[in-house]
Amino acid sequence: MAAPSDEEGAVGPRCHHRSTAMPDVPFPPFCAFLGTLGLLCVAMVGAWCQHWRGGFSLDGSSRTFNWHPVLMVTGLVVLYGAAALVYRIPNAWSGPKLPWKVLHGSLALGAFVLTVLGLAAVFRFHNAQGTPNMYSLHSWMGLATVLLFSCQWAAGFGAFLLPWAPAWLRALYKPIHVFFGSTILMLSVASCASGINEKLFFSLKNGTMQYKLLPAEAVFANTLGLLILIFGVLVVAALARPSWKRPDSDSPGSRQPLLSAER
Amino acid sequence: MAAPSDEEGAVGPRCHHRSTAMPDVPFPPFCAFLGTLGLLCVAMVGAWCQHWRGGFSLDGSSRTFNWHPVLMVTGLVVLYGAAALVYRIPNAWSGPKLPWKVLHGSLALGAFVLTVLGLAAVFRFHNAQGTPNMYSLHSWMGLATVLLFSCQWAAGFGAFLLPWAPAWLRALYKPIHVFFGSTILMLSVASCASGINEKLFFSLKNGTMQYKLLPAEAVFANTLGLLILIFGVLVVAALARPSWKRPDSDSPGSRQPLLSAER
Repeated sequence: MAAPSDEEGAVGPRCHHRSTAMPDVPFPPFCAFLGTLGLLCVAMVGAWCQHWRGGFSLDGSSRTFNWHPVLMVTGLVVLYGAAALVYRIPNAWSGPKLPWKVLHGSLALGAFVLTVLGLAAVFRFHNAQGTPNMYSLHSWMGLATVLLFSCQWAAGFGAFLLPWAPAWLRALYKPIHVFFGSTILMLSVASCASGINEKLFFSLKNGTMQYKLLPAEAVFANTLGLLILIFGVLVVAALARPSWKRPDSDSPGSRQPLLSAER
Repeated sequence: MAAPSDEEGAVGPRCHHRSTAMPDVPFPPFCAFLGTLGLLCVAMVGAWCQHWRGGFSLDGSSRTFNWHPVLMVTGLVVLYGAAALVYRIPNAWSGPKLPWKVLHGSLALGAFVLTVLGLAAVFRFHNAQGTPNMYSLHSWMGLATVLLFSCQWAAGFGAFLLPWAPAWLRALYKPIHVFFGSTILMLSVASCASGINEKLFFSLKNGTMQYKLLPAEAVFANTLGLLILIFGVLVVAALARPSWKRPDSDSPGSRQPLLSAER
């Protein structure tokens, strides 16, 4: 096993996670790899919709639907993943935590806005086509994910950025926020995979372009689905890795709200 | 925040995970809840296939296919989850580790056998119907999950139960085994969700029984899909929870193989 870092070594033998830490990898190159993978996912979902599904519009046609996968992958997977990983950047470990809190909340808000626009796209498409909303397991999973995300953002903003929450409530809520942070990402990548699968069954039906004959579009979109899953698994693993967590996350500074009552 | 347990309190302030531990919950009642949830998933997937999909047979018809969801949910989700959680049982923390290793490996082997039978069922169904295998994203995800699981089981058996692997190799491989343990479960629940979604689109096509009209079967199977996702998320969360990890997982006893060279 790779030698533990100084910091890990200082934790002492009672710290349970020591034996299950992955071999030492620095966060920055891993993060650069994840960023590249995330951008590749965004580029691929855009290329799929542009090249094979007719591009984008706001007219209620299937070209309106195409905004749905692009906005969901970009918002609820890639930007969400970036927001979740903010505190793993080593620069966030020293100095005031507040700027990093604002960055975390802002990226998550950006992810949430894209997600809501992605939902609006599919509801507009369904309504224009006379198709019912919210019947498939994909839609149930997806909506549950977005509802959890909205609660997560609102509760996080209320607890960690506004001055009203007492310190004990913040300390109580923080591990719940962390737990749902990973959970929402797992649910969102599972929703993306089921959505891509469903869309390909809907779209690839005729002649030599049937899904079961694996045309180029199917190979491309299946590959995209696998890459999204890999991205999600790596982000969840990075979040769980003890040595990448902010060491002083219990310090008083970590509980400083955006608008403190004293100011 | 709930007061840390004695054991957590002894870890000291440098242990990073302390601030992100969930409020203290004992493992046994959580495990009983998870077991009930897992059994409910198995009962529901069986009831779905029996009540709405015509039951079970080995004749290559859709009743042969019905073994696929039942065996996958039972093996690759519920039994796999049970195998993964063996070392979180407090009884496994004291005394020799070997019996728990054997239990862990045996449950995982049982899960693997059911999984392979589940794959055989869908391949037999496809071949009997002249349908190509391995074209959908669901099938790609599922097969990738099973391939990872087979590597995981073989490498775990070779490293931790056979006497050949040196201690440094075991220590190097262990965190990788732990990482893929959670990853495979995440992939398997995502595969189940996409598979249930796909099956409902295939099966619910006619008249008042169309999926988009949400007949009782669709509500039932969608609910099953959500319960499987909740089961997977809770198992992954339980695996990641520091205070539920075996404290002495670095002790010499933990490296004792099934057939040690000395015996």
